[in-house]
Amino acid sequence: MQSSSNWGIIATWRMAYEGISESAQMLAEDQDSTRAALHAVTRVEDYPYYKSVGYGGLPNECGEVELDAAFMNGDTLAVGALAGVKDLANPVLVAEALSRERFNSFMVGEGAREWALRQGFEEKPMLTERAQQHYVKRRRETIDRGLSPYAGHDTVGVIALDQQRKMSVATSTSGLFMKRPGRVGDSPVSGSGFYADSHIGAATATGLGEDLMKGCISYEIVRRMGDGLSAQQAADSAVWDLEQRLLERYGRAGDLSLVCMNNRGEFGVATNIDNFSFSVATATHPSTIYLAWREGKRTHYREADQEWLDAYQDRITAVVS
Amino acid sequence: MQSSSNWGIIATWRMAYEGISESAQMLAEDQDSTRAALHAVTRVEDYPYYKSVGYGGLPNECGEVELDAAFMNGDTLAVGALAGVKDLANPVLVAEALSRERFNSFMVGEGAREWALRQGFEEKPMLTERAQQHYVKRRRETIDRGLSPYAGHDTVGVIALDQQRKMSVATSTSGLFMKRPGRVGDSPVSGSGFYADSHIGAATATGLGEDLMKGCISYEIVRRMGDGLSAQQAADSAVWDLEQRLLERYGRAGDLSLVCMNNRGEFGVATNIDNFSFSVATATHPSTIYLAWREGKRTHYREADQEWLDAYQDRITAVVS
Repeated sequence: MQSSSNWGIIATWRMAYEGISESAQMLAEDQDSTRAALHAVTRVEDYPYYKSVGYGGLPNECGEVELDAAFMNGDTLAVGALAGVKDLANPVLVAEALSRERFNSFMVGEGAREWALRQGFEEKPMLTERAQQHYVKRRRETIDRGLSPYAGHDTVGVIALDQQRKMSVATSTSGLFMKRPGRVGDSPVSGSGFYADSHIGAATATGLGEDLMKGCISYEIVRRMGDGLSAQQAADSAVWDLEQRLLERYGRAGDLSLVCMNNRGEFGVATNIDNFSFSVATATHPSTIYLAWREGKRTHYREADQEWLDAYQDRITAVVS
Repeated sequence: MQSSSNWGIIATWRMAYEGISESAQMLAEDQDSTRAALHAVTRVEDYPYYKSVGYGGLPNECGEVELDAAFMNGDTLAVGALAGVKDLANPVLVAEALSRERFNSFMVGEGAREWALRQGFEEKPMLTERAQQHYVKRRRETIDRGLSPYAGHDTVGVIALDQQRKMSVATSTSGLFMKRPGRVGDSPVSGSGFYADSHIGAATATGLGEDLMKGCISYEIVRRMGDGLSAQQAADSAVWDLEQRLLERYGRAGDLSLVCMNNRGEFGVATNIDNFSFSVATATHPSTIYLAWREGKRTHYREADQEWLDAYQDRITAVVS
């Protein structure tokens, strides 16, 4: 396939910004989209102050960090995923290794962990003192008062398009905060948390996995791009339609936030929350953090200003009390 | 919604025949599609001679039976699923219970098992002496000779349509035979192993989960029925398209077999293997076992004759040697 000077990378949340900025440089230098996507996700996994992914991720209701991750190669459609895994430094790298397996490419729990360790992936105690403090605080504020503890499920999902027109998508999360041990969300579920087809584009989700899985939303967005919709139209229309179906049929709808990109590097975003941040860079678009919200059926976004960025940094590093 | 005298039930494989025949009677008496689907699946889970589902299911490479199951309510789109779970008598009943949870509705491993036991679901050692014999034989014939051991992944999937026009779908499997501990296939994965929307129809899959998950095939079949295709056209076209994509992009395609039904009780079947059996009954169609195969792009099927049925019974009850 002919090379193009086009490339792009987009990710859920502000937390992916540093990673995608570095990965953008890799893509500009004609590196592979798999490497770029994995680099951006591992940067988030490794950073202790992001409390919904990897090291420093918040624990389940028993105080243990259980991680989910996935990888999809948009050229071959190969998928690798793992879920409910403890104490692995970089689950997304294990997911990518699993995507190269013909069989047993989605693995969970202790079996997944043992396989990863046999392959030489790094073991790492993933519960930080800070995450432990958040856990204690959250229990006190919710369960001890008879309130629902479920909140905080901010998956990192990264889509990369390289100059060879190959697309890759990768996800990583510690899942719904205060989840039951063994709970799995959409992040390792093909078609719900992610989907990539280099002939069309890719999408990835964050929000309430239980609801995202009711609509195979990432697959549906890619499909609509394949039908000729722009990335933005595909994202907005699919998220709107899923939310309406959930409200009519299930009686309520959780948080649904998606980013997508087509294989020309055009991106889209859709959310049903007020303040969904995402990070994007392309050959023609410098690395930027945006804040997205919805008005009517359409998602709008603006560049995050310094005030917002400063408040964010203060919030994630504040003393937990 | 107005009641109709229409109803239907369809399932993957001959093994579901006794169950769907009883469930057909329930549907004829205006019972709910959830009850009908669960009844049919538990009949298969409980029968010791079906070596790919429930009690008597074949173990993983370490000799342990690990079960996957799911349930989807086509009215509400609620999904419940569990994966990699040991020694629960009826995983599909746990999946249905999980579908009634707002959060934590997909659970894996020990966490899923502990939740199920706390809810009062029955513990049961699921490895039979016969399955153990199969395991030893298979190791001898494959791994000991340096051959790939992967075969035998015959998931039961049941779709039911009741007279209130509610559709339900349920799956249960012990997964790919000789799988690694922790391996999960398509059966608990929404959109891949199953999907149901009472406004349209439902679909469920059996075959190589790793490949079925690359295409969200059950979701895609339901979607095509929603676009106006007949159940048969939707199944045949979607399975053909996925197989072509896999061959072109991934270089090979595993077994892909699907059944589907629309909300008028019209059914469809598609397979890329030579001898896929399925079981179906509707208000206008007596309970029947069919054998399906593909010619060109179309799946054909004929009623299983006595000779085939006798040979099947002999095979599943034969002494393992």
